[in-house]
Amino acid sequence: MFELLNRIKGTADLKALYPEQLPQLADEMRNYLIETLAPIGGHLGAGLGVVELSIALHYLYNSPHDKIVWDVGHQAYPHKILTGRLAQMPTIRQYGGLCGFTKRSESDHDPFGAGHASTSISAAYGIAAGRDLSNENYQVVAVIGDGALTGGMAFEALNHAGAHKNRLLVILNDNEMSIAPNVGAMSSYLARIITGKPYTQAKDTAKRILGKLPGALDAAKRLEEHVKGMITPGTLFEEMGFRYVGPIDGHDFEHLLPTLGNCKELDGPILLHVVTKKGLGFSPAEEDPETWHGLGPYNVETGIPHKSNGTPPTYTQIFGDTLADMADHDARIVAITAAMPAGTGINRFAKRHPERCFDVGIAEQHAVTFAGGLAVAGKRPFVAIYSTFMQRAYDQIIHDICIQNLPVTFCLDRAGIVGADGATHTGMFDIAFMRNLPNMTVMAPKDEAELKDMLLTANTINGPVCIRYPRGNGYGVDTTQSAVLPVGKAEVLEDGGDGLVIAVGNRVRDALKAVETLRKEDGRAMTLLNLRFIKPLDAESILLHLKAAKPLVIIEEGVAQGGIGQEIAALALSAGWSGPFAHIAMPDHFPAHGTQNEILRDLGLDAEGILKQLRNH
Amino acid sequence: MFELLNRIKGTADLKALYPEQLPQLADEMRNYLIETLAPIGGHLGAGLGVVELSIALHYLYNSPHDKIVWDVGHQAYPHKILTGRLAQMPTIRQYGGLCGFTKRSESDHDPFGAGHASTSISAAYGIAAGRDLSNENYQVVAVIGDGALTGGMAFEALNHAGAHKNRLLVILNDNEMSIAPNVGAMSSYLARIITGKPYTQAKDTAKRILGKLPGALDAAKRLEEHVKGMITPGTLFEEMGFRYVGPIDGHDFEHLLPTLGNCKELDGPILLHVVTKKGLGFSPAEEDPETWHGLGPYNVETGIPHKSNGTPPTYTQIFGDTLADMADHDARIVAITAAMPAGTGINRFAKRHPERCFDVGIAEQHAVTFAGGLAVAGKRPFVAIYSTFMQRAYDQIIHDICIQNLPVTFCLDRAGIVGADGATHTGMFDIAFMRNLPNMTVMAPKDEAELKDMLLTANTINGPVCIRYPRGNGYGVDTTQSAVLPVGKAEVLEDGGDGLVIAVGNRVRDALKAVETLRKEDGRAMTLLNLRFIKPLDAESILLHLKAAKPLVIIEEGVAQGGIGQEIAALALSAGWSGPFAHIAMPDHFPAHGTQNEILRDLGLDAEGILKQLRNH
Repeated sequence: MFELLNRIKGTADLKALYPEQLPQLADEMRNYLIETLAPIGGHLGAGLGVVELSIALHYLYNSPHDKIVWDVGHQAYPHKILTGRLAQMPTIRQYGGLCGFTKRSESDHDPFGAGHASTSISAAYGIAAGRDLSNENYQVVAVIGDGALTGGMAFEALNHAGAHKNRLLVILNDNEMSIAPNVGAMSSYLARIITGKPYTQAKDTAKRILGKLPGALDAAKRLEEHVKGMITPGTLFEEMGFRYVGPIDGHDFEHLLPTLGNCKELDGPILLHVVTKKGLGFSPAEEDPETWHGLGPYNVETGIPHKSNGTPPTYTQIFGDTLADMADHDARIVAITAAMPAGTGINRFAKRHPERCFDVGIAEQHAVTFAGGLAVAGKRPFVAIYSTFMQRAYDQIIHDICIQNLPVTFCLDRAGIVGADGATHTGMFDIAFMRNLPNMTVMAPKDEAELKDMLLTANTINGPVCIRYPRGNGYGVDTTQSAVLPVGKAEVLEDGGDGLVIAVGNRVRDALKAVETLRKEDGRAMTLLNLRFIKPLDAESILLHLKAAKPLVIIEEGVAQGGIGQEIAALALSAGWSGPFAHIAMPDHFPAHGTQNEILRDLGLDAEGILKQLRNH
Repeated sequence: MFELLNRIKGTADLKALYPEQLPQLADEMRNYLIETLAPIGGHLGAGLGVVELSIALHYLYNSPHDKIVWDVGHQAYPHKILTGRLAQMPTIRQYGGLCGFTKRSESDHDPFGAGHASTSISAAYGIAAGRDLSNENYQVVAVIGDGALTGGMAFEALNHAGAHKNRLLVILNDNEMSIAPNVGAMSSYLARIITGKPYTQAKDTAKRILGKLPGALDAAKRLEEHVKGMITPGTLFEEMGFRYVGPIDGHDFEHLLPTLGNCKELDGPILLHVVTKKGLGFSPAEEDPETWHGLGPYNVETGIPHKSNGTPPTYTQIFGDTLADMADHDARIVAITAAMPAGTGINRFAKRHPERCFDVGIAEQHAVTFAGGLAVAGKRPFVAIYSTFMQRAYDQIIHDICIQNLPVTFCLDRAGIVGADGATHTGMFDIAFMRNLPNMTVMAPKDEAELKDMLLTANTINGPVCIRYPRGNGYGVDTTQSAVLPVGKAEVLEDGGDGLVIAVGNRVRDALKAVETLRKEDGRAMTLLNLRFIKPLDAESILLHLKAAKPLVIIEEGVAQGGIGQEIAALALSAGWSGPFAHIAMPDHFPAHGTQNEILRDLGLDAEGILKQLRNH
């Protein structure tokens, strides 16, 4: 069934095939991906879109000598298969298995890892500049989607590379999608190029000529320069100093091989525009590419995702619905997403308030300052960006929002452990990088009902607010009643004389379990505070509940260094308290991937780990 | 002497002038700026370049009803003068005086403050989108330099705004400079537009026609549409969805007034390309715009800066020279600046190793990931970016450098209090946002000799390194001998039994003074540790020198929240220590502007303030 594919133990096996065999290999790879990911989930759509491109690249280039940098490594599944990782593909994104993105430590064929978008041109140009300084001679290729091209750093890199002469091939993989359909002027521009008459003509001409010739691929190579001349020039890229080639059909080896072959011979910065279809070969993914960007297990025949029945709504859903409800009654509320309407839950808001919803593209920096402008114009912006992507806009949060004390609320989904996406997507720094900012209020809900309360609360605060909440389902608690919380006040969940446990957000439930078990099984009754507000810190409650010479334990799902536990330590020390102290938080290394529960267990952050620590103190 | 200027108490007084009087007003304003800033210094060049543009904008638009957003507010001196702040101009950038940038709290005419570049389009578009949601009717204008346009977020904003129909005027103030001459493909592109024949022709035509007509300005208004058609189209901006107008001469009211008048009538996003000369009217500033970007007092006749003789070299100079020396012997070393070769000292490196020096434009995100690529190619990149601008690349530091553990060294000049530039430029967060990153080593030198040691040390570490050092002069210590420091080891400067003082970087000298005074005057002998390594923390030395029940005092020039003092508190608490504890650091608000010494004194961070705290504990 996978006759050709099973031969591919490495790139040498690919190069041993005849060009005429490549379409069959592509078909096999597509089927393999669809079947292999069905029981485990993963990023299917992006990989299906670049099957031919990946094969063509490895057929013509010599990785790892040549460096291929994949932007947002989730499009790199075919690349992984072709570079000796076929046998491990069934382990992808699972504990101990292959990473879902490119990763330097995983393979020499991954020269630069990437989980976030828009980095590939910068990285590839850095490699190319280093190569030229060392007078070495290899090819450097960046493969970047049109979505990732809307990220400002991609433009910064084009601006830099385009002004110099270093040999660099940037392949624009244009599928008209980020995770959601692309937005913005660049997207319209690319669409105009593709739908322009010359592109269609050129395709037809090429096909007609190639169809008539024996040894079509060689002929195509000779013809390519001619055909190219007939195609719309990518003026914008030419103006940025790149030689523009394309657009070509990214699923047609008769286009890909000769064009890529030509590009190898050219010097200086080149932009090759390749048109692909996300999810090609699997009709559910072709028809609904946003849902099929990355997902859980599915039925390989019908494409219907396996769903466990009766799971509680996710924090994402609660966020989206609550914000939409709030906006029904408050015309000032606007919502902003950076190319992730479904992932953040903003799509739910967008359905009810389309005119008040802004998808700015993969452009977190702009998203935040744009929100600042909206606030100046009297609006109450809610900016929904995953914790780890918010790192992209740190300066804008400080410089444009906090210094000016503008009422912008940052809604950080995927705070803490994210599971299968691993280190690049783990929201482990936000407590540390938000709580140090003047004027900022930082909250973390213990469950989905408290998330609702915190959204209401945020809307009453006249300054910047950050709410961090985890990936995944809530606990199924009743969310019908909501209330504005007293700002800066913690909640006492258990009261006892044997010590003080302070838990933050997502760790409160497990802390409660541990405290309950300790009370029942060990007869030790500890006070449990649900901190609620990381900033301002409820120093009064903390000092009130500190027990002399009894344990003080702080639990947070974020890095220990810079965590709120360290501030509480300073507070306790200043108050002259001493006693057994434990700070249960993420250690000073990047976590592995696996399920959220596997990683929490590894780090001792689940109920069992917390209980163990409580018993040790 | 300032006949017209002195009448301008607000924009109404400007509007009362005849158009024919505006050139005289511009002359007066130039002379006023040159004279007023001579004794106090400031950002002269940028302001001189936009005198006519500022006058024309306020002549035709109705601020504060209309919103004018100045990118990097240091070009806003003429704007400040025209909006009622003339009398306070002699106080600019001084303690208690006007801010050197736009600032919302200073004036209704400053709708959005800015000290960092590239934010104006995002902010202005946010205001415009908010206006349209509220069905309000006012103009929104962003004025952005061609340098700031190289920042990725400006592109993100163009991409977003260009895809929609909201009325927005973006004025590209094209002077071919960032602080240094501009780099990159965009710069070349703009230069091609300006030097292209059509621009010259159009200028000549316009002048010829206007010269022959009475009531020239009205006529010009009618003619403008015609003239525009003859000018090179700014294809790149048109492709991004903007209507492009220009280029026009930004010092010629006969161009500015009719064109700006026309732009007011147009709907949708418009980009007006205005060509200006930085420093116009003051020949030293015209001839050397980089030096004259922002500087200290100068002689108003000769333009020669006042220099105090015999001041020790700055940290910046020591950094630049040391890195150049190191590169003489290590071919792997490369240096990267984001449009600030002189400000960071990289110009000194560039003179000796031009091929190994990269100025990437105002593009901190790209700078960092580009450095990552260079590291992958076997280089040892040193990225020189001010502390506060490094906030722009936080995600890239985490995602591209730390996760991959690449040997990139971040050299953070202007860490801590910066003085006259105030809140937007204060490097108060870097200790907090760097020390929480796995794989990162963070150092802070006590003086310029130790900066040299730390640069040598960084080059021996196989992973990311951050060195933070202050603005301004060193102490004049001997820098001829340098050595690699033991990683993660603090230095004992004083030894005594009455307590432990731990000081970081720039605060070590003042801490030493305070400890010495305390020993001499109070007979209390405290141990003083120069921490050197914020990360990894020298827990061993700290625990060794902790005195039971005696004070523990930590001093750092950065925010207390998230500061290293909080980690030391957690360490001490974990070790069971208790006693008087003080964390002398920056409080939870943004500092004012003034001299560095004034601000340090205000915050109790100078020797006197430290001594006071030591006596209290």
